[in-house]
Amino acid sequence: MTDRVALLTGFEPYGGRGVNPALEVVRRLDGSEIGSVPVAGRSLPVSYRALRSRIDEILEHMNPALVISLGLWPGTPMIRLERIAINVADFEIPDNDGAVVTDESVEANGGNALKSTLPLRRIEAALLEAGIPAHVSNTAGTFLCNATMFEFLHALEDRGRATPCGFIHLPYLPSQVADLLASTRAERRLEREQRADLASMDLEVMIRAVRTAIAVGLDPRA
Amino acid sequence: MTDRVALLTGFEPYGGRGVNPALEVVRRLDGSEIGSVPVAGRSLPVSYRALRSRIDEILEHMNPALVISLGLWPGTPMIRLERIAINVADFEIPDNDGAVVTDESVEANGGNALKSTLPLRRIEAALLEAGIPAHVSNTAGTFLCNATMFEFLHALEDRGRATPCGFIHLPYLPSQVADLLASTRAERRLEREQRADLASMDLEVMIRAVRTAIAVGLDPRA
Amino acid sequence: MTDRVALLTGFEPYGGRGVNPALEVVRRLDGSEIGSVPVAGRSLPVSYRALRSRIDEILEHMNPALVISLGLWPGTPMIRLERIAINVADFEIPDNDGAVVTDESVEANGGNALKSTLPLRRIEAALLEAGIPAHVSNTAGTFLCNATMFEFLHALEDRGRATPCGFIHLPYLPSQVADLLASTRAERRLEREQRADLASMDLEVMIRAVRTAIAVGLDPRA
Amino acid sequence: MTDRVALLTGFEPYGGRGVNPALEVVRRLDGSEIGSVPVAGRSLPVSYRALRSRIDEILEHMNPALVISLGLWPGTPMIRLERIAINVADFEIPDNDGAVVTDESVEANGGNALKSTLPLRRIEAALLEAGIPAHVSNTAGTFLCNATMFEFLHALEDRGRATPCGFIHLPYLPSQVADLLASTRAERRLEREQRADLASMDLEVMIRAVRTAIAVGLDPRA
Repeated sequence: MTDRVALLTGFEPYGGRGVNPALEVVRRLDGSEIGSVPVAGRSLPVSYRALRSRIDEILEHMNPALVISLGLWPGTPMIRLERIAINVADFEIPDNDGAVVTDESVEANGGNALKSTLPLRRIEAALLEAGIPAHVSNTAGTFLCNATMFEFLHALEDRGRATPCGFIHLPYLPSQVADLLASTRAERRLEREQRADLASMDLEVMIRAVRTAIAVGLDPRA
Repeated sequence: MTDRVALLTGFEPYGGRGVNPALEVVRRLDGSEIGSVPVAGRSLPVSYRALRSRIDEILEHMNPALVISLGLWPGTPMIRLERIAINVADFEIPDNDGAVVTDESVEANGGNALKSTLPLRRIEAALLEAGIPAHVSNTAGTFLCNATMFEFLHALEDRGRATPCGFIHLPYLPSQVADLLASTRAERRLEREQRADLASMDLEVMIRAVRTAIAVGLDPRA
Repeated sequence: MTDRVALLTGFEPYGGRGVNPALEVVRRLDGSEIGSVPVAGRSLPVSYRALRSRIDEILEHMNPALVISLGLWPGTPMIRLERIAINVADFEIPDNDGAVVTDESVEANGGNALKSTLPLRRIEAALLEAGIPAHVSNTAGTFLCNATMFEFLHALEDRGRATPCGFIHLPYLPSQVADLLASTRAERRLEREQRADLASMDLEVMIRAVRTAIAVGLDPRA
Repeated sequence: MTDRVALLTGFEPYGGRGVNPALEVVRRLDGSEIGSVPVAGRSLPVSYRALRSRIDEILEHMNPALVISLGLWPGTPMIRLERIAINVADFEIPDNDGAVVTDESVEANGGNALKSTLPLRRIEAALLEAGIPAHVSNTAGTFLCNATMFEFLHALEDRGRATPCGFIHLPYLPSQVADLLASTRAERRLEREQRADLASMDLEVMIRAVRTAIAVGLDPRA
């Protein structure tokens, strides 16, 4: 098929951070080919209000062979292959509009949860084989990442498309942790010896991870 | 000066692991030049019995302009610039000879502790500036790494040499964590959701970190 | 009403551990009254095969006003009030029959997930007010605890009962962590400095937490 | 001997916290007897400037049979029996005077480090035997706690007293973590799913731990 395309989305920076590794990976892979399939990179706003229409707009103009959305999971030491999106929005911090949602449903009539339709175990095996720390995760949280995964799965189901679709959480970039350490040392506000949540992963490793996930996801039988 | 050399040591694998990032970095930097100073890489045995004589042997044949020793700190998400070595050997696991030492002194008449003579704050600043997570650490543990730092500082003091000398702990390589995840999934013996200690760092990032540390350490006034 | 009863279940020990704080709390609260409602404590086998029939058997003989199941989440520092049970069984360690289940459904036609019907935010507020660390958690894992929560919610739904029902994960007991430290020191197999997952909570605090959860759960409008 | 006394010190609250478990334990044990030895509880200011004179003043009026100082180590899940105090003051946060000290010596001519003179392994064994998580720690940090341990050991050495002396770090109280969770939820500023540093320990368990440490410390041969 000549016009197969792999859709890769990533969030803009949020939470006061100047960069989001998800968007960095999207920028680097946008326009590249994996197998012979071009990657179409799209940014997503960290706006709960705008999220649904942005997803609809993307799927209106595109019928991708695969959908992988990327987000940041601050502190994780590993690639998290999300197994399930729950129909819950419950924010610990505001989104970029300043919106804070508490214990709401993402979709009023959307059921309790939707499962990733990516071949997660094959992706996990391929990543570990490639020397990249990864695991199948049982929670995508209840912020924008989870909502995005839920909305994409829901929208594809609505349209009757059997597109493999899922969400991958990425660690911090090393430079983000370095900036955090530099600024907190300057401001004397972090008791760093106590922190176990400052893991990171090199951008090149993340890019290899996402390329691998796309390749396996596009392969009907690896 | 024509024959200045920077000594870089790294431990062999231990604790049942097949690889040690410290030794990988040493292999990659051995023979390279930083500024115009060649790096002399040396491996160290994970043998408490053999450690002292190996260090004496090295310093017998070489009068380096700088000594940096590298070791693995399993689980750390950051480069640890060790501030102090204590005169204590107390092993949680056996060394490669099977030796387990409990609450002994490293050197019978060695005082309680010796401080790194590297410019730690300048190295920390250079690493953070370069986007590499790093911090000045207050414990090098009580295993071979601490003993090595203590012995090198002690041996240089003994010989009346004012050589800048210290120890840097490195995180796991990503491939080590990937192997750990793959094997524990196979053996069903790790409750992985509970683990907060699986951080890693790409080899290229570690190499940049150690090159930076050597460059700053060799520079009398950065 | 004379025959209202609060059902409290707890798992037997598993994973090679000699004790399970969940069962200890059940034993202590079994037969006590909260408000004027008696607590009926029941143990559950850590057997995936036997779990469903044990739950059916309990609900055959009892129509509780409330169902709270308890389990251990090794390493958590807080009471975890589980928000959702997913229709997935995927074990990292074997159950007490030696069974290992991978990526199966708990119930063949059970949907993707079921939500706790306990008043989680009121319970969370009451626990924090009482000085007990607690939070609403977004994953109950994919082992027996999650399956139990799913099966109880499913069985009550099947029977058309609107009973408030949910699952609470408990930390280790301090004595469990002490035993772990003593045995690993003896066996020299744990690099303890690296472990961030050895949190625990006193049995009396857990008992207060569960009593509070039951009281709030029984109160239609706190 | 009729006038043996065990000196127990604890810090006042700091770092914006309203309570310090160290001081709570001191208040509860002050005036009690362990064996037949009375406990003299003293509070210490979180003031680097005032610390030395407060310690001198205490030792001027008292010749204790034992000195144990207590402090908080935010996030630790265990009792930390400190092995060594280093001659370094380097604050990550300001003390209660607003003072921030960077990479200074605690005592100008004080050597590099001083070792605890408590029977740490006997205390550790007694705590684990009593079911209380504890370990011998290799760093007391570089804030007021470390300085206090260093100053007490130094002052006793100066006075030629062979008093067993050391420092014990305590976890948060459960109520402190509960308050932290409640306030951060209210203020929406903590991404809690990421935090691995919210362990706590019940006050009664801490009191048992400190009583045990004092009893073992007073016993010349347990």
